[in-house]
Formats: sequence, structure tokens, C-alpha cells
Amino acid sequence: MTTPLPQPTGQMPDTSIYERRESAVRSYARSMPRQFNRAEGVWMHDNKGGRYLDFLSGCSTLNYGHNHPVLKQALLDYIAADGITHGLDLHTDAKAEFLRTLEDVILKPRGLDYRAMFTGPTGTNAVEAAIKLARKVTGRELVIAFTNGFHGMTLGALACTGNAAKRGGAGVPLSHVAHEPYDGYYGPDVDTADLLERRLSDPSSGLDAPAAILVETVQGEGGLNAASPEWLRKIATIAKRHGALLIVDDIQAGCGRTGHFFSFEGMGVTPDIVTLAKSLSGMGLPFALTLFRPEIDQWAPGEHNGTFRGNNHAFVTATAALRHFWSDGQFLADIRRRGTMLERRLDAIAGQYGLTTRGRGMMRGIDMGSGEIAASVTAACFERGLIIETSGAHDEIVKVLAPLVIDDAVFSAGLDILEECIRAALTVTYGVAAE
Amino acid sequence: MTTPLPQPTGQMPDTSIYERRESAVRSYARSMPRQFNRAEGVWMHDNKGGRYLDFLSGCSTLNYGHNHPVLKQALLDYIAADGITHGLDLHTDAKAEFLRTLEDVILKPRGLDYRAMFTGPTGTNAVEAAIKLARKVTGRELVIAFTNGFHGMTLGALACTGNAAKRGGAGVPLSHVAHEPYDGYYGPDVDTADLLERRLSDPSSGLDAPAAILVETVQGEGGLNAASPEWLRKIATIAKRHGALLIVDDIQAGCGRTGHFFSFEGMGVTPDIVTLAKSLSGMGLPFALTLFRPEIDQWAPGEHNGTFRGNNHAFVTATAALRHFWSDGQFLADIRRRGTMLERRLDAIAGQYGLTTRGRGMMRGIDMGSGEIAASVTAACFERGLIIETSGAHDEIVKVLAPLVIDDAVFSAGLDILEECIRAALTVTYGVAAE
Amino acid sequence: MTTPLPQPTGQMPDTSIYERRESAVRSYARSMPRQFNRAEGVWMHDNKGGRYLDFLSGCSTLNYGHNHPVLKQALLDYIAADGITHGLDLHTDAKAEFLRTLEDVILKPRGLDYRAMFTGPTGTNAVEAAIKLARKVTGRELVIAFTNGFHGMTLGALACTGNAAKRGGAGVPLSHVAHEPYDGYYGPDVDTADLLERRLSDPSSGLDAPAAILVETVQGEGGLNAASPEWLRKIATIAKRHGALLIVDDIQAGCGRTGHFFSFEGMGVTPDIVTLAKSLSGMGLPFALTLFRPEIDQWAPGEHNGTFRGNNHAFVTATAALRHFWSDGQFLADIRRRGTMLERRLDAIAGQYGLTTRGRGMMRGIDMGSGEIAASVTAACFERGLIIETSGAHDEIVKVLAPLVIDDAVFSAGLDILEECIRAALTVTYGVAAE
Amino acid sequence: MTTPLPQPTGQMPDTSIYERRESAVRSYARSMPRQFNRAEGVWMHDNKGGRYLDFLSGCSTLNYGHNHPVLKQALLDYIAADGITHGLDLHTDAKAEFLRTLEDVILKPRGLDYRAMFTGPTGTNAVEAAIKLARKVTGRELVIAFTNGFHGMTLGALACTGNAAKRGGAGVPLSHVAHEPYDGYYGPDVDTADLLERRLSDPSSGLDAPAAILVETVQGEGGLNAASPEWLRKIATIAKRHGALLIVDDIQAGCGRTGHFFSFEGMGVTPDIVTLAKSLSGMGLPFALTLFRPEIDQWAPGEHNGTFRGNNHAFVTATAALRHFWSDGQFLADIRRRGTMLERRLDAIAGQYGLTTRGRGMMRGIDMGSGEIAASVTAACFERGLIIETSGAHDEIVKVLAPLVIDDAVFSAGLDILEECIRAALTVTYGVAAE
Repeated sequence: MTTPLPQPTGQMPDTSIYERRESAVRSYARSMPRQFNRAEGVWMHDNKGGRYLDFLSGCSTLNYGHNHPVLKQALLDYIAADGITHGLDLHTDAKAEFLRTLEDVILKPRGLDYRAMFTGPTGTNAVEAAIKLARKVTGRELVIAFTNGFHGMTLGALACTGNAAKRGGAGVPLSHVAHEPYDGYYGPDVDTADLLERRLSDPSSGLDAPAAILVETVQGEGGLNAASPEWLRKIATIAKRHGALLIVDDIQAGCGRTGHFFSFEGMGVTPDIVTLAKSLSGMGLPFALTLFRPEIDQWAPGEHNGTFRGNNHAFVTATAALRHFWSDGQFLADIRRRGTMLERRLDAIAGQYGLTTRGRGMMRGIDMGSGEIAASVTAACFERGLIIETSGAHDEIVKVLAPLVIDDAVFSAGLDILEECIRAALTVTYGVAAE
Repeated sequence: MTTPLPQPTGQMPDTSIYERRESAVRSYARSMPRQFNRAEGVWMHDNKGGRYLDFLSGCSTLNYGHNHPVLKQALLDYIAADGITHGLDLHTDAKAEFLRTLEDVILKPRGLDYRAMFTGPTGTNAVEAAIKLARKVTGRELVIAFTNGFHGMTLGALACTGNAAKRGGAGVPLSHVAHEPYDGYYGPDVDTADLLERRLSDPSSGLDAPAAILVETVQGEGGLNAASPEWLRKIATIAKRHGALLIVDDIQAGCGRTGHFFSFEGMGVTPDIVTLAKSLSGMGLPFALTLFRPEIDQWAPGEHNGTFRGNNHAFVTATAALRHFWSDGQFLADIRRRGTMLERRLDAIAGQYGLTTRGRGMMRGIDMGSGEIAASVTAACFERGLIIETSGAHDEIVKVLAPLVIDDAVFSAGLDILEECIRAALTVTYGVAAE
Repeated sequence: MTTPLPQPTGQMPDTSIYERRESAVRSYARSMPRQFNRAEGVWMHDNKGGRYLDFLSGCSTLNYGHNHPVLKQALLDYIAADGITHGLDLHTDAKAEFLRTLEDVILKPRGLDYRAMFTGPTGTNAVEAAIKLARKVTGRELVIAFTNGFHGMTLGALACTGNAAKRGGAGVPLSHVAHEPYDGYYGPDVDTADLLERRLSDPSSGLDAPAAILVETVQGEGGLNAASPEWLRKIATIAKRHGALLIVDDIQAGCGRTGHFFSFEGMGVTPDIVTLAKSLSGMGLPFALTLFRPEIDQWAPGEHNGTFRGNNHAFVTATAALRHFWSDGQFLADIRRRGTMLERRLDAIAGQYGLTTRGRGMMRGIDMGSGEIAASVTAACFERGLIIETSGAHDEIVKVLAPLVIDDAVFSAGLDILEECIRAALTVTYGVAAE
Repeated sequence: MTTPLPQPTGQMPDTSIYERRESAVRSYARSMPRQFNRAEGVWMHDNKGGRYLDFLSGCSTLNYGHNHPVLKQALLDYIAADGITHGLDLHTDAKAEFLRTLEDVILKPRGLDYRAMFTGPTGTNAVEAAIKLARKVTGRELVIAFTNGFHGMTLGALACTGNAAKRGGAGVPLSHVAHEPYDGYYGPDVDTADLLERRLSDPSSGLDAPAAILVETVQGEGGLNAASPEWLRKIATIAKRHGALLIVDDIQAGCGRTGHFFSFEGMGVTPDIVTLAKSLSGMGLPFALTLFRPEIDQWAPGEHNGTFRGNNHAFVTATAALRHFWSDGQFLADIRRRGTMLERRLDAIAGQYGLTTRGRGMMRGIDMGSGEIAASVTAACFERGLIIETSGAHDEIVKVLAPLVIDDAVFSAGLDILEECIRAALTVTYGVAAE
């Protein structure tokens, strides 16, 4: 059987309606000027007949690919039967089923005892709920976040986000958060966890006692920096020693992306609070959760709420996804095999051109040295039918976020395109040829 | 034909999974301890065979009722055809169709020239985007909001919300917002718009120059206080005179609830920014929009973003809803007739017991004088199979938020139940009997 | 004996050193371009031989006039004897003597039980200490201040200040303070204390529970608005009911200016905290105190400090001033007689020209209707040798702040000059002639 | 001639008036429970006839000793002649004379072109003015301060202060300031200026673009950490590169304490803004200045003000001090000789007991390893008649801040007492005997 390949047509859509009626804030549509209409698995189709291979996966929202048939059927059946669509925070069959599945398939096998808070169905809402809870429980205001961290765009989460352009959009100074250096920020010789401990142990450092330490184990937007288990364990110990809660923001790295369901598995830490969103619904539907230890579930009823915290369609597809992919070890084995495949392939490319790689599991990238070169790579990929994006403070990392379900041969074909585009970009820029 | 009536069974569901795994923050589930599984139109069904009449409508999220067949079919067709589910902010057929419909069915006929910003699909995200934009455009920080206003739970929107219990959940002081008295706040003899003008005209009042004035025309959560057109026009004039943008938060009052698509129609004001969510998707799917004049569309690409800002399922159902209900005047006529019916009925009940009513269009309520009495009314209604909730600073308003599509006879039957429960509650409390 | 009169020479000093070396922030020196070198009592002398009558009194810092001989001698003796000049917060004879005199001459006769905190010797430091303490004691953040209030220029006190130009200098948004309307702010028919009570009693008003209500009984900078005893008592009751501390900022109105030592005497309120500065040292030396009930003296040692909190020269002159002026009732009788004289005179002038007066005791002024006219009056006065300034949101009030020790005949002569200049200014502006 | 020695009597004063009427916030009076009444040069006298040698100098406020005869006489003459005492910001002979002297004696010889802003006469007011100006000039909010920095107690300056106990007194979260590691904070191998550059160059570090970098060249309260010239030059370069103003807070280290008038002299940097206070008046009178380059003198008239910004007594003594001590190089030579003497002596003591020393010039100390031991040393010194205090995050540094005018023999005798008390404390604690 032949491996299917992307088939872009190169035809541009009519974009007049967007120019007339959509805000200038739109962004992906600018670098990928097509109008899409259909998608299944790893493939997206535009309205001119073009076919694109998706190495972006909705920024890790589509770990199981587009419109996975099992999830799709579950949703069709549910809708056809007039299942509750919008349920505020009322009990519904779909929610009960989701909670039971979360308990049986995810929490129990991992020995985790968390309660689930259904926040408004976006990641930033989950982060806002997490830091509110940490502040309430500890009676402190300061949240320690990290350089290059990305946690959302509403004011509470945005204060935790490192990116200056995003922060500038706030229009007010962002307060009650300190950004400390992430693992490796000052190079391999400086243990930034030690620096943090030094400052928190010093009553005159100017760093107030924190309510929480908020960390991504891999910084999806911030350049695919991956924390080491040792560093993460130190951070967990520091949090505990100084009376702060440890929050792992697993919105991008969770749901299998790193080769575990939770990205912190196997690292020797158990966060007090975990945020999930993106791939949680499995099908790309808006859904977010804040999980936490029962002991800190100190919310008053309705103290944090939101109209769409009962998105039952998402409960249905999330339940189907947990059951289908996480009931046994097959999917995990697949992810890990593909993660290793990706690692080897990127290392080989990087080695050839003197570049470096970043990341963990199935979230990895190559540092192109500048945002300009990285943008030329992704633009060339798109011309070839490969949807791929950048990451990092300067958008200098070309980032592979393929669906975790991608067929190995297709994956390989996509990486071939990427390699060719990198080679071409470097040749144009530096006149480099592969050795 | 007999008018269908609620048929509650009184049987309680097994709630152990919620107690074990859902956060204590859940609230509606406490006063309505049933597990729902199915719904159509104005009816919700629990898993013990009970049927409930919905006078809450997902807090005005289900203006067209549950699972409206036209919307449902559109969504089933779209999913079956593998339409794009999650599209970041990429162009899709579903988005283009939605924008065109918004333009043709809503904006053009009303002479409104707005651009649409697809924010994260919750109301609070839309509000955060609105105040960010106002701060950016004006270069000012302060937002003027109003007593009893409700605008969301993320830190930026929460700062605009009046409710002390919600605000207390922030864990940090809420800044950059001043709450001024809403229309009628100090009684009928004090024009609070004049008070605001007085303060803004005084360079020594301590009230900084505002970026925006953020207002609901009817305060859905804050007690169904309805602003008069005169007051609203004054506020609009004040905003303009002092260089502030006027933001109408139409999340609860919009999408037909007041007898217009936008709640500010016919009041002689054109907001600079409008937020929509709740009933926008028509079927209860998460969807939110921030609309604004093209002149203030000063966003940089991606300056505000969010994973789920391209919820294409919602685009599909929203498009179907706009076309089905808003292409001609039939639906509007129905809403207004039902609004008048509701007004008369509540006025009659209130008159009988010396109570007062509040609200406008199809969002009206009765002030029971205390939260305790109001809670006893809604609890009694629920026992009779009527889902209804309270509003107001002390939860003292029993609030009727029936689906706008409700059959007149069913509506009347539901209001009969409400009246009986009010009578019973007042008899218990005061020994009052109807005259 | 002839009443001495001002004798300005009209000669300008050499100001090159100021232009070269002093910041552009200087202000009084611009409208009074003379170089002064000597002063005694109510008279200031410039270095060209001119003599000026002082109706400004260092903004009420020189209630006992310049260089009062009793205070001057006490200070000369102290310095000659090598008395401690700078004592940090160490015990010194001078401090003990001051505390004993404060207790005997001021506190005991008034039945007041306060502890004294020696803050940094400026009014703004005293206010910062007051609001810090209130926040610590109550565990709350919000301070309620009033429209047109002036409390200082450091960030904590500036947030409590109403003036937009001063606030704008902060360079950061000013937080944790709400400005509510002062007595009479919305005209005689609106009781603004009732408005405040309404908002604080409403859990959904958006006004958080306050740590303190901070009020001046007469707003010295804000336009000489004088609170009525009834209003002030209501404010005190509101503070108590809502768990807030009542802080009276008596920096400008205290030390006799209103006809009492404390401006709140005789009004039926006892503040929890009082701030004093300006005339406290009696001779114009930097000195400030924060007084409070012993029960709320919850400071940890050194929790608030400052290098110059032990300005012993000021202790010496303050002690001499308290003893000389406040040991019996003579000075009070003089102030009240002069206050009545001032009231009658200003009322007569105002009546003649259809103007209104403001203030209480020896801090009164005439509202000239515009800052421009007021400035023309004070400029004309200065040309005639009378030093006088304006107050109010638009600098529209010509403000008489004569030394309290002024001789009646000299006072009358000064008021003659003022009247003539007002007449002249109004004639120029409106062509008005006295009737 | 015999070297005079301290002669404490050990008699305690009557402190009842303090217990009754002074706030619990008093601190130095607790560890030095005497009542002082007289002082000259390096000696303080209590009211029981005891004599104390002052190694604290009002925390570096009395660099020229107590009541220096030249300054004292100048002040006596000025007061006797009825010189202006309190002058708001009016031109006075005393101010002109001070400005001319500052220009001639300090600025011109050092090639510095600064304008002087007379702030409220406390250090914290000067710092507040400095950061306000920096924020105004740059249009940015964030100030970068350093670990262990101390800048004052009003809210703006307190936000820049590192000490947790002081910060906790604010009662509100302290915002708009980031504390970065000072020189040597992470040990000798980590160049913290490089860390700062790394973060400011990274648009995703979460550190917003700063308005100012605020630094002490020696941290007087924070443990006598002395920045190296190399580090300070890097910081200056970083400030310039990133559009921030460099503010040197020279309140404690200025006025000769380090062996230069300004502590930054000879280090290769010229700050944009400098704050001075403490020893500026020379005699311990409240006085503070904010100096800055004329180009950034962007204040509007009166935009920052304060009642006591014209403390003319302080102008008189400051002028006398500048002329007497700074007109030629004699005083500097004396300071440097004594600084070297102090360095050798402390190094010798430290070497003997395995301790380390800190500081520069005449502000040096010994790290006793714990606050407990340091407190026992200073208590023992006080019993022997030596007034000396601690510094540092844990109050672990015994700090020598002798008057700069101290006689060499007396200095030596005081250091003998210190050495003996250190020896005794270490013997008690560790059983260590000098080798």
C-alpha cells in the first residue's frame, strides 16, 4: 500500500468575509491562508480540494486526530438520542459516566486521589480556578511561575504567562506573580531550583511567600523546554517546604503527549493541583478540568462558576477517548515508539546542520536559531501540504505536534517534508549543504 | 389537546460518584438533586423517569430550548460529514458561513457595523477581551462597572463583578475597576447617571479617567434590574464625552431574551463593544463573541488568543439558529407576546401579595423580599417539577428565564405552578392568604 | 498705634541658581517670585527689603506664626546645650517631655486615650502608617477615602488623594482605595452618608469590605468643604457597623485651625486613628504623628520605621507650643473670635458679589467661580504684599489660612486688601461694581 | 592624653510614659533601654550620667557626629536672626546658598550635572519621587530592585524593599517591582548581572520592560553587601540598553560613608537619578534630595509636593557641612584612613574566629553566623557603653557605622570593646577561645 501524502492545490480561498467581519486578532489564518472544511485523522481538507497533513493538531488539542470514528459515533448517538447538551453543573448521565471513567481508567491505576472541578471549558479558566484555589487555601497572593511559561490570556492566567507581547495586551500591570528561571534557563551549569530555594529561604529576598508554584513539565509555547525529573522533584520539595501548592499545568503536555497520560508521571512528583484542557475531550470540543487533592477542595458552592462548565458533548467524547485509548497499554506503547522515532529523526536532522533539539515524547522541535528561518521552514512546509508551527520566545523552534495516532509511515513521510524544507531554508540562509 | 405538565418522580439518584470525585464547588446540583439524561424543547428528563419544565434555560443559554430539531439536525449532518470540529482560528466553511449569516441576518438589518472576535468560548473570555481592547485603545486602565453587575469569574472580569462572595474567591485584591451605582440604585429620585457625570467632570473626585463603561441593560444575575433608555443614553453620552468606550455585556440579555436580538436595540445607543455568549450557539454549545466597531479593531495578530476559539460545531448551530429564528419577524413577535404575557402574570401575582416585579421582555422576576422565602419558592417549584432559580444580591428575586420558544399554554401552566408555590411560601411565612 | 501693612518692593530676585539646579517641580516659587530670608509672626521679608503679610501660613503649618519667640527660645536653649538632635526612636528627655505634655495638655482634658506613633516627619508618612495599621488590624485591603480628599504623595497616601494631576504622577494605577462622595458632594438634597451605607450594606455593590474610612473634617486642599457633625457621626457609625476603622486626617485642619485642637472635637465622634503633622511642631519643623486607640496598637517592633522619626528639635518646639498655647482657654477664645470675624467678613464680601463661602473656623475661603479668576485675585494680592493661595478641584477657592495668632487689626487690614483685589478681579472679568 | 572611654552607669530610666503613650512599634529603645539627653561628637549621654560611644550614628545619619560645633553655630545664628524656618518650596536665601554650595563643592568638581528636587524630608519620600519620575519618563511601571535592598516604608518604596517583615506590614500586595539577585547573591561563581541581562533580553521571560533599576552600592540594612565596580557597570549598561533609568539609592551609603561623597564615585557609572537623605543635613535634621539629569526633569509644577520640602534649618546645616568637610581633600583622606583601619581590624577579628567580613569604607561588619549571636554581641557592647547594631536578612551582621569624624584612638578603643564582646559571645556559644 502506498503511503498517502499531502496534496495541496495552492489555490487561495475568498477571504473577503474575514477581512470585512473578523477581527485583526486572527493569526493562524494569516500564515495558512486556506479555508478548511473537512478533516479525519491526520488529514485536513480545504475547500479547493487540497489535502494537508496536520503536524500541529490544534496545538495538541487533537492528540487522537480529527474526528476519530469511535468518538464521533459516540457523539452522534448521544445527540440523536437528545442527550443533555448544556447542563450547567447539574448531574447528568454523561458527567457521571465521565467521572467514573476518569476514576477507573486514569486516577486509580495511577494511585492518584483527585477531585475534578469543571471550570469554564478553556484552559485559561482552568488555570484561573487553580490559582484562585491556591490563594484561598494558603491565604497568600503570590504565584511563582516560570520564564517562558504560557498559561492563558485572561488576566489571572496572563499574569503567569511570560510572553511580553501577550502580557502587553493586558493594558494594566500584571501583578501577584513572579517569574523564576525554568530548568536550564541559565545553561546546564546553573541549577535554577537551587536559586529559587535560596531566594525563598531568604527573608529579605523580596520574594514573598508563595501561594503556589505553577509549572509546565514541558513548555509547549515557550520553546519545548523540558524539565528534568530531578529539577521537578526539587521544585515539588521547595513548594512543600515553603507552604506553597504545586500546580502542574498539563493543558498542552497532558493527555498522552509526553508518553504518559499526565506529563508528570514517572518523575516522582504528585502535584497538589493539575490543569487539563486541549485534548481532554478527545475530539477538539471545549473542555477543561482542574484536579486537586480532596484536602484542599475548600471551595464554597458556586464560588467559582461559569455557564459552559457542563459541556456534555465533551463529557461523552472524553469518556469514549479515555476508554478507547487508555484502558490498556497499547496506545501508550504506540506513543512511545513514535516519540522515539521522532527523537531520532530530529536529532539526525539537527546533527546534520549543527542545530539542537528540544522536548520530550511526541512534543519535540528543532531550534532554527531565529524566528525568521523557522518561519521560512514552516511556510515551505505549508506549501508542500504540511501544517506545522513554531514555538519559543523568538518563535525560533519548529515544533512537531503530530496527532499521537499517526501511522508510522505517514509520520515518516511528513518528517521527510520537514527535513527537506529545513535543508532548503538553511541553504538559502547560509548556503549550507548537507554533509 | 391536553397541555403537558411536569411529572417529577421524587426519586433521588445515586450521587456517590459526585461526592467522591467532583469538587465541592458544584452548586445547582445541590438544590436540584437529580441526574438528568435527556432533554428536548422546554423539557428535561431525569434518570428515574421524571420530567421537568425548564424555567431556567441554562441561565438564558437555551433561548431556543433544548436540542432544537433544526439545530440538532444541522449538527448531526456536519459531524457525519467529518466537518472540521476544532479549527484554532483557521478559516473554515463553518466560520465563513457563520460570519456571513451574522452579517446578513443580524448586523445589516440593524445598521450595525461590527467586527467579530472569536474569543475562548465562555462569556468571561469575551469580557476579558473587551476590557483588554478598551484599555489598549484608550491607553487607560480604569473600567467603570456597576453595582450588582455580573461579568464573569476570571480575574479581569471578576474585578468588574459586584458580588462579594464571588469577588472574595479571587484571593487577591481586585483592581482597576470602579463600581458606580446602576440605574435606580438609590431609588427613583436619584439619577445615578448624573452622579457619574458629576464625578467624571470633577478632576479631584478620585475617579480616574476610564477606558470603558461596562454595562448590562438588564442585570441577569444582579436582580433583573432593567436600565431605562434615558439612563442608558446618558451613560453612552458620558462615555463619549470622557473618552471611554461603551461596552454592553449582552451575554445574558442578548440573543432575543429582551424582545430584541441585542438588548440595547430601540434604546438609542450603539455600543462600541458588545459581548455575546450563552444563547449564541443556540444549542448550548460553548461559544462567545466580542463585537466592536472596525475603527477600534487595534489588535495585533494573536495578541489575545485561545485554544477553543474555533469551536466549529457552535458555528454550525449558531448559523442554523440565526437563520431559523431571525430571518423574519415571527420569532420576535412570539417573544414579545410571551414577554407581555409574563409581565401581566407576574404583575398580577405581585399585586396580590404586595410584592414588586423586575425585568424586561422574557427575563422577569418577583422580589420575594428575602433570599430565604425565594429559596423556599424555588424548592417547592422543583418538587412540583418546575426548574426555576433566583437572582439578586440576596438571591431574593425568583427569576423566570423560560425558553423563548415555549408554547403559550405550557408557559401558562408553569406560571400556575409558580403562583401556587409563591402563595404557599407566603402563607407559611406570613400567614398571608390571597384576597 | 498704626496697624502695620505689607510693603512689597516689587523687585525680582536673581533666580538663575534655581533655574540651573532646582527641579521644574517647584510651584509656589513660580507665583511668588521672591527670595525670602527672614520672618517673624505674620510677616515674611524678601531679600530686596519687601515685607509680606502671610495668609498662607505654610498651608497651615505655621498656626502660631513664624519663629514664635517662646518656641524659638526653647529651641535655641536646647541646641546650645547640645540636646540630642537626631535620636532614631531612642528614648530622650525631649521625647518624654513631649509625650507627657501631649498627655496632660491635650489628651487627658479631652478624655482621649491614644498612643502616639512617631512616623517619618511628613504628613504622608503619618497617613501611610495609619492605613497600614488599619489594614493589618482588620485584615482587609480597601480604604474608603472621599472625593476631593488630599492625603499625601507617596503611593499609599496618593491612592487616597482625589486630585487627578497628583494621581497621574504615580505612573502606576493606584489601587486598594475607593473614593466616595464627601458631605454635600451631590448638593444639599443628597445625604452621601446614606449612599455609602447603601453600598456597604449591599453584598453585590462591588464595594469590598473596607479596612478604614479616611476622612478630613474640612478638606484643606480639596476646596475647604466642611463636613457637618451629623454627616461625620453617620460616617463613624457606618465605619463601626461595617468593621472598618475611622481615620481622621487632621494634618491640615488640626492643631487649632478649626477652633479646636482636633478638628473633630465637639462633633460627637472619636476616631480610631488620627494623623497630625503641619503645625504640630509649632515652628514649622518636620514632625508627624499617628495617634490610635491602644487596643489597635498591633505593630510589631520596627514593623514601620524611618530615619527621622526622632526629630528632637521638633519635640522641643512642639512641647513649648502645647504648653504656651493650650494650657488654658485664652488661645482658643482668640481663634474663635478671629474665626467669626473671618466668617463675617467673607460672607459680606461674597454676599456683595453673589459668591459663596466655604470652610470652618480659621480655614475659610470664597469660591470665585473659576480658577482663572481666583488666580487673578491671589496674584493681585501678592502684588499688594499679601501672600494667599487657592484651593479646590479647579483652584477656584481663594483660601484664607492666616496664622491663628494674627493681630485683629492686621487681620482686618489683610482682609481689606483681599476684598479690594476681589472687587478688581470681578470688575475686570464681569464689569461688576459693588452695589 | 588619655583616650576617653564609654562610661555607662547601668541605671535604667523610668519608661512608664513610653509604655503608656508610645506605640509598640518602637524598636531601638527596646535594646538600648536608656533615656538620652545630650550628645556631642561621638558621645551620647543618658539622664543617669552614663556616657556612650556611638557606633551607630543614627544609621549613618550622623556622619559628622552629633551637634558638630560648626554646624551648630550656623544653625544658632540662623535661628537667632529669625531666618525662614519653613518655606514650602519658596525661594529663600538658605535654599539658594545650599544649591550654590551643592553645585560648587559637590557637583562641579565631580563633573556631575544634576538638578535637585526637594522632596518631603525623609529617605522614603526621595525614593518615591525617584520611582515616580522614572515611571513618568519611561511610561513603564516595573522597577527592578534587588534582594536585600532597603528603600523605605511608604508603599511605593516598600515595594522595592526586600525584607519580608517590613513588606508584611503593608497589608496589601506590593506590586510593580521585581527583586533580582544582587551582586554575589548566588555566590562568587554566578554573575547576577548576566542573569538579569539574560532575562531582560528574553521577550518571554515574564520580566516586563523596566522603568528603572534601583540599586544601593552597599546594602546598609541588607547585610553590608558591597557591589563590585564591574557588576555596577554591567547594571548601568543593562539599564541603558533596555531603556530603564539607573537610580542609585545613596541614602545610607552617600555623604562620605564609603570614602567618597557619592558611593558610586570611582566605579565608572553615572546614575540617572540619585537619592540622598540621612547625613545630608549634617546634623541629623530631616532632609532628603532626589537628584537627576536635567534631561529627565519632566515634572509638572507641583506634580509631587510635600509640606516640609523647604526645611530651611536643614539647608543651613547642610551648607555648613558641605563647606566645612568637602571643600578640600582632608576629610576624605581621614575617612579613607579610618576605613582602612576598620577593614584591617575587622579582618583580623574575623580571621581569628573563622568569620567573614562585609562592606566598604566606613560601613563594614562581621557576619556572626546567626542573628542570635550577633544580638548577644551588640547587647554586650551596649552594657560596656558601645552603641552598635546589626544588619542583614537574619540580623546576623554586626555593623560598625561610627561617625566619620571619630578620633583614631577612640575608634580603636571602641573596636577593642567590640572584639572583646565577640570573643565572649563566641566562647559562650561555641566554647571557642582565641588561638
